[in-house]
Amino acid sequence: EEDGGGQAPAAEAAGFVASTVPEIEMLLGASEEYAASIPRGASNPFADVLYGVPISAPKLARIDALLHKFGGGAQIHVLIDHPSQLEICERYVERSRMSHDMARGGGTVSPDTSPYFTAFLKLDAGYHRAGVPPAQSGLELATKLMTSKSVKLRGVYTHCGHSYNATTAAELDDIARDDLDTSRKFLRDLTRHMQSIGWGEYANLRVPRLILSVGSTPSLFHHRRSSSPSGGGGGSDDDDDDDGDTANLELHPGNYALFDRQQIHLGSCRHESDVAGTILAAVIGHYPDRNTILLDAGALALSKDSTPQGGTCSIAGREDLVCLSTSQEVTVVGMKCNRPDGGGTFPFDDFPLGSKVRLLPNHSCLSAACFDRYHVVDEDEEALLLASADDGGGKKKLEDVEVVDTWTPARGW
Amino acid sequence: EEDGGGQAPAAEAAGFVASTVPEIEMLLGASEEYAASIPRGASNPFADVLYGVPISAPKLARIDALLHKFGGGAQIHVLIDHPSQLEICERYVERSRMSHDMARGGGTVSPDTSPYFTAFLKLDAGYHRAGVPPAQSGLELATKLMTSKSVKLRGVYTHCGHSYNATTAAELDDIARDDLDTSRKFLRDLTRHMQSIGWGEYANLRVPRLILSVGSTPSLFHHRRSSSPSGGGGGSDDDDDDDGDTANLELHPGNYALFDRQQIHLGSCRHESDVAGTILAAVIGHYPDRNTILLDAGALALSKDSTPQGGTCSIAGREDLVCLSTSQEVTVVGMKCNRPDGGGTFPFDDFPLGSKVRLLPNHSCLSAACFDRYHVVDEDEEALLLASADDGGGKKKLEDVEVVDTWTPARGW
Repeated sequence: EEDGGGQAPAAEAAGFVASTVPEIEMLLGASEEYAASIPRGASNPFADVLYGVPISAPKLARIDALLHKFGGGAQIHVLIDHPSQLEICERYVERSRMSHDMARGGGTVSPDTSPYFTAFLKLDAGYHRAGVPPAQSGLELATKLMTSKSVKLRGVYTHCGHSYNATTAAELDDIARDDLDTSRKFLRDLTRHMQSIGWGEYANLRVPRLILSVGSTPSLFHHRRSSSPSGGGGGSDDDDDDDGDTANLELHPGNYALFDRQQIHLGSCRHESDVAGTILAAVIGHYPDRNTILLDAGALALSKDSTPQGGTCSIAGREDLVCLSTSQEVTVVGMKCNRPDGGGTFPFDDFPLGSKVRLLPNHSCLSAACFDRYHVVDEDEEALLLASADDGGGKKKLEDVEVVDTWTPARGW
Repeated sequence: EEDGGGQAPAAEAAGFVASTVPEIEMLLGASEEYAASIPRGASNPFADVLYGVPISAPKLARIDALLHKFGGGAQIHVLIDHPSQLEICERYVERSRMSHDMARGGGTVSPDTSPYFTAFLKLDAGYHRAGVPPAQSGLELATKLMTSKSVKLRGVYTHCGHSYNATTAAELDDIARDDLDTSRKFLRDLTRHMQSIGWGEYANLRVPRLILSVGSTPSLFHHRRSSSPSGGGGGSDDDDDDDGDTANLELHPGNYALFDRQQIHLGSCRHESDVAGTILAAVIGHYPDRNTILLDAGALALSKDSTPQGGTCSIAGREDLVCLSTSQEVTVVGMKCNRPDGGGTFPFDDFPLGSKVRLLPNHSCLSAACFDRYHVVDEDEEALLLASADDGGGKKKLEDVEVVDTWTPARGW
């Protein structure tokens, strides 16, 4: 998912964004392994996870169960973009404290009244999927979060998913700058709003400590450019100048770890070899009458997601071919360009029945979610593969490449 | 998948089409349960399965393992549309017989030389996904299959998947008729071809016994119409008249068991209540500034498949709303029509945070493949639900509906 997997450079902000509860559980499991390998007290990014979907009551109960399972070292932050979600958290904490008091004999107030859950406020910075607008309703919700006895506000979160519709680098520069400007301006507005209702001193102390979590994979490399003096002009920042402070800044480019065909199109990466997640498929059909072949990977392996450059996926190293259609279990591959006279013959000899091809998915997040294990291949093997492809194949067969590890993903939600 | 799940009316042709090896294993498991409930020797459709994807060597080995596991009662037919696939089968049988002879002491020829695998020949009837053309290359491959010592040809198979692009009932009539005509004409041509090369007597005996397996869900109800005298004119049948014989005819409408939004569009079914597979989702966000809500079901539950009427899915009983976008874990829902003056307010009160909605998928095959269990609801409960929706909801909550059974699907491929 576009929101997933962000890990920030600053020590305080380091952590992960998860899109599902099983992902959180996997990360917290990893945090225990990781903790054993680092000095006591050192920062552990695996133990600091934001659940990046607006919180609901059933998910909150599952998150609380994970907090209990993994103990005091684990932090799971919830995402809030509506007052009712804060009420869900507050009711949950109230009931927990009551049942805790009951268990202790009842009657007395529990001494532990410090905030129980930590939260990010989701702001809508123009993508219009989730998020409260960075206007009056957003300021009121943020103030409620800042003053809640059950929830501690840790930061504000935006996802500029509209970057996926950008067609030029200049547009991405603008989106990256607006994304960050929206959050910075919101925090200034929040301080003023809280000052106006008598919480000024508290706001002065707490607001500067909030984390700004912004970004998307397509806009990732456009933040540096737009934060330079020459690139920063003409922004939406309508009063103060930014000081460029990035102490509490966190970027969350969820697709960065794998990339895919869409990211090549968007310029997030350049080459097929930048795409780290590919699907091994077998050739199972030859159709000389219509110059196509059939592969045994379909929508169950690739998803049906599309990308502007067309094709349902692509075969690594074969820019002359196009994946014409993908149904549930199979994909039809044809030639990208027939000869001007309408002739031309599919290079069947390069793809004997039973041979393997490596497919680049349109959207690696959805394609990765189709599988219950990933085979990890060494970078040198990868280079060898590409060299083979450049030479027309044959040096080393795909199925002979050494698998150095097997990873098991979190599944479900 | 479009090809899956066909079950024919005629006793001899009764059986299933599976799209994955795990599906075959599930069906054969069911066949053992079913066999215990029927008279000895009675027809058992679960024990008669076609693997509906062109066969490859790794899949053939898995199918052979299933044949051994489930014993003599089970039949698994393979699909062939290229001479190399027949060679794969023949080499496999040859190796099996050799190793069997070796185990018996070697030297002698195994007495069991009857065909080992049964197969359908996949014909391309115009969809151009898989299938050999019903021309000279198809006749030559069919003849090889008819005379193979390792494989027994059981029938010819077409899937008129281009029916999904039809826009009128008349087009579907034509596609259904052409689909069947293609297979019938092919069998007549096959008899003549085999007569011309000295296999006439054999062809006269065997060809009439071949099964014709045709169809698709959109064309299902157009077969009856196009086989009537008035509807049968103008077909592609260029010589003999059809006698309308359906003794060996098998239809495989894979989507018929569930239907979906696309099938409503195509006229395969009419009403939302005809769609048997729906997804229960929760409302997790309200966005009054832009008149949308957020649901906790995304592409991991719905797939990214599209359908001509637009929308990434639809909410049962709410034709006033449209599912605007679906990302990995969430779906954004808005109003289908704003007021002419641009105003109008989303009916937030009908969808409190935490309430449940029932989603109709664009493509039920891909959506069903997202889940590891299905909750089965009684038809009366279903009627009750719809009545509640008609009354504006509130009579019975979706989450209170009684689940009468839970089904576990086959997964992977």
